[in-house]
Amino acid sequence: MTDPKIHSTPKTAISPTRAEDFPEWYQQVVRAADLAENSDVRGCMVIKPWGFGIWENMQRYLDGMFKATGHKNAYFPLFIPLSYMEREAEHVEGFAKECAVVTHHRLEHGPDGKMRPAPTAELAEPLVVRPTSETIIGATFARWVQSYRDLPVLVNQWCNVVRWEMRTRLFLRTTEFLWQEGHTVHETADEAIAEANQMLAVYQTFAEQYLAIPVYAGQKSESERFPGALTTLTIEAMMQDRKAVQAGTSHFLGQNFARAANIRYLSREGTQEYAWTTSWGASTRLVGTVVMTHADDDGLILPPRIAPSQVVILPVIQKPEHRATVLEAADQLAARLRNLRYASEPVTVEVDKRDLGGGVKNWEWIKRGAPIRLELGPRDLEKGTVALARRDRPIREKAFKPVDEVVAIIPDLLADMQAGLYQRAKDLRDQHTVKIDSKADFYDFFTPKNQERPEIHGGFAFAHWSGDPAVEAQIKEDLKVTIRCIPSDPNIQDEPPGKCIISGAPSSRRVLFGKAY
Amino acid sequence: MTDPKIHSTPKTAISPTRAEDFPEWYQQVVRAADLAENSDVRGCMVIKPWGFGIWENMQRYLDGMFKATGHKNAYFPLFIPLSYMEREAEHVEGFAKECAVVTHHRLEHGPDGKMRPAPTAELAEPLVVRPTSETIIGATFARWVQSYRDLPVLVNQWCNVVRWEMRTRLFLRTTEFLWQEGHTVHETADEAIAEANQMLAVYQTFAEQYLAIPVYAGQKSESERFPGALTTLTIEAMMQDRKAVQAGTSHFLGQNFARAANIRYLSREGTQEYAWTTSWGASTRLVGTVVMTHADDDGLILPPRIAPSQVVILPVIQKPEHRATVLEAADQLAARLRNLRYASEPVTVEVDKRDLGGGVKNWEWIKRGAPIRLELGPRDLEKGTVALARRDRPIREKAFKPVDEVVAIIPDLLADMQAGLYQRAKDLRDQHTVKIDSKADFYDFFTPKNQERPEIHGGFAFAHWSGDPAVEAQIKEDLKVTIRCIPSDPNIQDEPPGKCIISGAPSSRRVLFGKAY
Repeated sequence: MTDPKIHSTPKTAISPTRAEDFPEWYQQVVRAADLAENSDVRGCMVIKPWGFGIWENMQRYLDGMFKATGHKNAYFPLFIPLSYMEREAEHVEGFAKECAVVTHHRLEHGPDGKMRPAPTAELAEPLVVRPTSETIIGATFARWVQSYRDLPVLVNQWCNVVRWEMRTRLFLRTTEFLWQEGHTVHETADEAIAEANQMLAVYQTFAEQYLAIPVYAGQKSESERFPGALTTLTIEAMMQDRKAVQAGTSHFLGQNFARAANIRYLSREGTQEYAWTTSWGASTRLVGTVVMTHADDDGLILPPRIAPSQVVILPVIQKPEHRATVLEAADQLAARLRNLRYASEPVTVEVDKRDLGGGVKNWEWIKRGAPIRLELGPRDLEKGTVALARRDRPIREKAFKPVDEVVAIIPDLLADMQAGLYQRAKDLRDQHTVKIDSKADFYDFFTPKNQERPEIHGGFAFAHWSGDPAVEAQIKEDLKVTIRCIPSDPNIQDEPPGKCIISGAPSSRRVLFGKAY
Repeated sequence: MTDPKIHSTPKTAISPTRAEDFPEWYQQVVRAADLAENSDVRGCMVIKPWGFGIWENMQRYLDGMFKATGHKNAYFPLFIPLSYMEREAEHVEGFAKECAVVTHHRLEHGPDGKMRPAPTAELAEPLVVRPTSETIIGATFARWVQSYRDLPVLVNQWCNVVRWEMRTRLFLRTTEFLWQEGHTVHETADEAIAEANQMLAVYQTFAEQYLAIPVYAGQKSESERFPGALTTLTIEAMMQDRKAVQAGTSHFLGQNFARAANIRYLSREGTQEYAWTTSWGASTRLVGTVVMTHADDDGLILPPRIAPSQVVILPVIQKPEHRATVLEAADQLAARLRNLRYASEPVTVEVDKRDLGGGVKNWEWIKRGAPIRLELGPRDLEKGTVALARRDRPIREKAFKPVDEVVAIIPDLLADMQAGLYQRAKDLRDQHTVKIDSKADFYDFFTPKNQERPEIHGGFAFAHWSGDPAVEAQIKEDLKVTIRCIPSDPNIQDEPPGKCIISGAPSSRRVLFGKAY
């Protein structure tokens, strides 16, 4: 009776719990929330309708922000000739090990009667399935850009990319994933740097205001840069197991890809100059990031702004004779709610009319993380009430309220939940983010204490680092800890210079250390 | 002086004209309208921002119609294991010759120092880049469907597909293209047939109301069916060269793919049954179809509902000192127009502020097919007028009108243009669609008369056909004419039975013949 475990492990919808086994909990939430599943194609996932609905909302909002900053969408080939990949040396080295390669363009019956790639249809030059599109888009931009009058080029592409992975995890690391990749060309380095900064700010706003995920923004160290970039900017989020996820990156590519692809323009002074380029991307990995930030031991909890349905109405029908009346009332309530607006858009509502038990349906929507559930049965109709449950409150908490009141408060409830989820995530992050000033403390912070939970360490640490790659490599080797970013926020950097906690060398600023997904 | 050619070939923005060389005219319009270009990857195109903007509008409207009919989006793997393709015999035979095949998952430096697919990273089973997804989605559905309670499954996917093509033409026939593919599973054959019919009706509505393209809807003959389907439904449009384009298809797949993928469900009677499936798709080919239906010898003409910008404002700035005032007035006018609604959505407006000559800009927007152009210069500001040009009227026709009047009439103008383009296309089609009752007339109709324009023939012919595949094959061999569809419209079929015009065998109905793209 005094065993604390008995009290600390109530029955939950997801097993194991976060405290028991975080990585396995994650997989179970993704499954229970009906977000995605593994396909029979190694490393490729199937994104199910509820998971894809989240991605569609992410796309819609990001796309709006890209267009508001002057970008237009376009589409470039899936295949990249092998020789294009080779044009930028660092780039091809960075991606070579992950490339899926198309070598044939026809199937035929082999001697055993089974289908095989036709030997007579081997490609003269193999084609790489794009792992990212700098090289193929660069070749296109070289045609588009002739004069300074053609600049800037501000383009974005929504597409699939392939990076062969040996160990995969749904959304976080898959062989095929969906993303957007922005690609821009500028007249000057300053303009390109401003563009890269602007798009990182877009990602930060999106993460914080739409995904309710607080992030640290900054620059990557040289060893963590995108292959071929001069600068890689990143936003870094803390998951509930205190590990970091890189949630969006923006690269200042200098003239590297312009030289590789020969993107040159006639300058205002009449000379031929190489242009300056950027690229920036965010992917379906964000769906996994939302799960690891907001879900609990009963399943997913969705920030209202990206929930495919913000309100789910569950008609409670115990007797067949009530069916028609209750469903009609549910539809009427749905129509009233859809006329409301939250965050400048109509409230999204789903009525679950499936012929399943009320308990089963209720738990499904809990696990899927629908922000608000409304139960409506014959007794509610008599009393003019509805039972309201918020997904960010304890699962069994229900409020019986008059229908008119519920309709009146829904937009505020959604706003309250959105803000509350952000605050909860920020509190967790801040609680596990420390400043560290000695090597001993640093190693202690990142060393798991509990044998049963070897994945749990301290969290994020701000510490001085002089810029020495050897120190960075040592820390990675010893602790699997990396520099997540060199923060750009002046509030974080408003500190006197110090000394590298490992080497003692002079350091101008603290950098953010963490263990990464 | 009496040479009629001198009068019949005025100067046009596109050369050659439609009358001179239709296929080449098409390529030139696509290029001049800035829609797309060939990439260096054989058969793969780059869709440029203006072209992609048209596709985005198509996607948005179709997606809304799919959702309104109960479908949800999801995403399935790009790669299909070769053995999956083999599960449905007709299917793999139908696509084998067009399949791009991934055989390796890594690059490495070869003995010559150049990159090559790593021999040690050859896949045990080759992967086909999806030419369509029935087999991989079927394998997924087999997991999703257990009981009749899980039915129907109503899913759609927006994605890229690859079908290796030797002869390509931008939008119409490319190795990679973008499309949507709907895939559904049903309890009964009747429900699946109703679904296939419903989605064809969606395509027809979309083509006629949004693309302003009249179509004939009906069933394909057996030889033209989708590989593995029991029934293929199609909408067929006539281009300005009188050839047919298949603009959308919907397939009743019977239980063929359910058997191949083992999609079975526990029936209401407690037995295990194979399910009934459908699939339906429309692609970026629609962009090419719009061009070939509506463009003229000065470039593209876009139906307002799918134009990326419905109104383009061209500030006329001859002297630098006018620049600020004119641009400000242009922005104000744009803001007023954006507050208007056409077809339940805000009017879309672009102000072209580029530092280019007014004539150059005007011709660019003519060629791109922007529905309405508004010129605004210093003299207009004094008079409170604006010069309005409609793309569906002669190029040099301009109306000088008070600004307030222009603002007031824009929504009606757009509606008028949309209706007018449809009517113009329908008139052309009806003019070149005939009923034919003899073999001699049929052969004459489809035989080009002008040696200089061997691609121009009669158009569409409704003629009796008994259903004999030999007759169909003969006509295809002799004339390159195919049965476009067996029309479903009762108004078309409200005729007595007759005799096949070739064989004389009894025929219950006329079918639509044409030459296809």
